[in-house]
Amino acid sequence: MDLTDTPDLAYDVFSRTCPSRGTLEHVTGRWGALTLSALAAPEGSLRFNELRRRVDGVSEKMLSQTLQALERDGLVHRDAQPTNPPRVDYELTPLGREVAERLLALIHFVEGRMDEVLGARERYDVTRGCR
Amino acid sequence: MDLTDTPDLAYDVFSRTCPSRGTLEHVTGRWGALTLSALAAPEGSLRFNELRRRVDGVSEKMLSQTLQALERDGLVHRDAQPTNPPRVDYELTPLGREVAERLLALIHFVEGRMDEVLGARERYDVTRGCR
Repeated sequence: MDLTDTPDLAYDVFSRTCPSRGTLEHVTGRWGALTLSALAAPEGSLRFNELRRRVDGVSEKMLSQTLQALERDGLVHRDAQPTNPPRVDYELTPLGREVAERLLALIHFVEGRMDEVLGARERYDVTRGCR
Repeated sequence: MDLTDTPDLAYDVFSRTCPSRGTLEHVTGRWGALTLSALAAPEGSLRFNELRRRVDGVSEKMLSQTLQALERDGLVHRDAQPTNPPRVDYELTPLGREVAERLLALIHFVEGRMDEVLGARERYDVTRGCR
């Protein structure tokens, strides 16, 4: 793995002023990652409250802010029907779907290796037990 | 992309009490993602100050906390030589390298599509210009 194989050197998340760092944070942030993953489910589109149930622990305010950032970045499409009460659905854009696929590859890998991670934590905590 | 193809259903980041959610946050957090990516560079191992220069914007305290969480999760190996002054090197473990590869696939994808993201932001901001 070589960092120099970056496909587009115009953007670099290592630079604190590069806008790609902000987008990476929207994608990988505490709630952004789970929101994108939930929207990658086969259902395709989800209503706000369905999303809130799926993303266990998120507040209404945080989910709303997360969806707004992802919509602004062109990763999520918000569809509001002028019914009464209004019906609002969220779904991934084609770009959002591509991002979510890569994110899910990472998430599934981490989930699949948690036994190793928990073993490492145990060893770490034991060797520092005298602190 | 189907969420049900999770390789190990014992762990689920969607559950707020699952330890995999914590590990995902160490891996994808603001500084965790950049630290793992920096350590994936061909140099192999980096000293604390080299890492700090590479991860533009991180404070000494945050980098130290980030490295400790990644070491505890078994993703980063810390090697302290008993020299004077002590020399401390950080490198990815084999598991950390596999995580970093998936993370870099996501980062490089986002960097490569930033023109689209910035275009989406412009359109979003224009249509909400009256706010």
